[in-house]
Amino acid sequence: MSILVVGSVAFDDVTSPSGSVKNILGGAATYFALAASYFTKVRIVAVVGEDFAPEHEQVLTKHGIDTRGLEREPGKTFRWGGSYVDNLNEAKTEFTDLNVFEKFQPRIPHEYADTEFLFLANIDPTLQAAVRLEMDSVRLTGGDTMNYWIHRTPKELAETLKLINILLINDAEVRSIAHDASLPRAARKVLAMGPQALVIKHGEYGATIFFREGAFGVGSHPFRAPALPIDEVKDPTGAGDSFAGGFMGYIASQGEINREVLKRALFYGGVMGSFAVERFGTERLQNLTREQIDARFQVFRELTHLE
Amino acid sequence: MSILVVGSVAFDDVTSPSGSVKNILGGAATYFALAASYFTKVRIVAVVGEDFAPEHEQVLTKHGIDTRGLEREPGKTFRWGGSYVDNLNEAKTEFTDLNVFEKFQPRIPHEYADTEFLFLANIDPTLQAAVRLEMDSVRLTGGDTMNYWIHRTPKELAETLKLINILLINDAEVRSIAHDASLPRAARKVLAMGPQALVIKHGEYGATIFFREGAFGVGSHPFRAPALPIDEVKDPTGAGDSFAGGFMGYIASQGEINREVLKRALFYGGVMGSFAVERFGTERLQNLTREQIDARFQVFRELTHLE
Repeated sequence: MSILVVGSVAFDDVTSPSGSVKNILGGAATYFALAASYFTKVRIVAVVGEDFAPEHEQVLTKHGIDTRGLEREPGKTFRWGGSYVDNLNEAKTEFTDLNVFEKFQPRIPHEYADTEFLFLANIDPTLQAAVRLEMDSVRLTGGDTMNYWIHRTPKELAETLKLINILLINDAEVRSIAHDASLPRAARKVLAMGPQALVIKHGEYGATIFFREGAFGVGSHPFRAPALPIDEVKDPTGAGDSFAGGFMGYIASQGEINREVLKRALFYGGVMGSFAVERFGTERLQNLTREQIDARFQVFRELTHLE
Repeated sequence: MSILVVGSVAFDDVTSPSGSVKNILGGAATYFALAASYFTKVRIVAVVGEDFAPEHEQVLTKHGIDTRGLEREPGKTFRWGGSYVDNLNEAKTEFTDLNVFEKFQPRIPHEYADTEFLFLANIDPTLQAAVRLEMDSVRLTGGDTMNYWIHRTPKELAETLKLINILLINDAEVRSIAHDASLPRAARKVLAMGPQALVIKHGEYGATIFFREGAFGVGSHPFRAPALPIDEVKDPTGAGDSFAGGFMGYIASQGEINREVLKRALFYGGVMGSFAVERFGTERLQNLTREQIDARFQVFRELTHLE
């Protein structure tokens, strides 16, 4: 099954303890699409500017990503600059130039009308909802958000959460939406707002999936996947989007949704996140094989597997 | 096999978002001994004051803990006050009255001379080393330390690390000893200082064990155990010592050390830590059954187990 991602494509400047890069291809939709492309066919809806060259688009098309939803607008592509020098776990934003992204109005090409799996990357919740409501064919919607929307547009976000089947956010975002410091309690509160499942991304500690009672018929026990201890995290940018790409991409590749598929998806999410951070930008995600991915899946499995 | 713990017995005042308690029995050796007592025979060496009443000692003896190494000195027992109101993950120390603990000189009763498993809880590294060197019968030594010693007595600590087979500390302590922000790199540096294995306690995210090449013949791949998401952490005090008690207690109960034993020990550590935080002080650790412990072990196992 193919999966559609709607979100940002950007050019990033990144500084980390491992060095500094400028103008590298980034954006949530880019990381997601590349990570998911190792599992299934991927379609993308995003907006880029005149500085988005054919070689940038080839990064996507080389991986079989359908770019018919990539809109070109006069002006520059979204640009973001961030630094991880003080804290590898949280970017300090140096600048955000929204450029053509400021007026992004996702338009779904008619060729995408049969999409069954949808991922709404971190954009304005009102746009997320509009995309979802436009697509009758969608069976499963994953979504992301961030503190900016949690604080600025809580009502709109609450409406969008009713349309999202699996929400993927981090610890701080869960606590922030629920106003509760206890992660399991906060998880239940978020699930009561709409999603059937909530994936909490713990960064270097892995991720936990919580289920609403009765969701997907998989039971209500949470499940946790570890993250691989990585010697040198070069660039954490896009780790969460790569996680989402592995997670959603694997689910879309399986077609049916059951507990074992969701558990494996959580592991594949961790695997793709762990690859992403090993190089700056999307470099590592551009140069993988499914064999390397499955080998690391086995390492993750062994990491917590009791006889 | 019986295990000996050397460390502090204390009376604690604790404030957390769940409430406030005063003068409750605590101390690293107390938490460790109670947690380990569900797996094996436990011996304790510690010092208490005149305010340590028979009912306090009974908390230990009721669990079969051998208290012949409990020394009574004129004066008051060690007292500690801490608050978790702002941060459940780190205590804010309100006061520390060392009292009789200030001049603690561990004396090993001759009845303990056949001890094969030893745990050196967090005390002055010089005392830790002296205890270890005095005990010829010991086959395996576990140990803990804290930032106070890492910064104040790094040389003495380095000597002690040569005598410890398995060091159990948290993320911040590992980074602090190794002067390295990367956990796997820091782990290798700590292992190069002496221990054959390093258990890094991640709090609510579980724990990872790293092995020195060739150690215990178990391979050099790390292993990770999850922690159970707990709805309400009432009192995090002693969670790390309870973890150590479950971990070392299970190892001592098995006699032989292999990879599967160490992996299960890591899970049992997490189980005992998760019980400890459910009530103030040692209350939960005082009222458990091995059946409850094994049931939670299964929950932990299911939490990360792929078919």
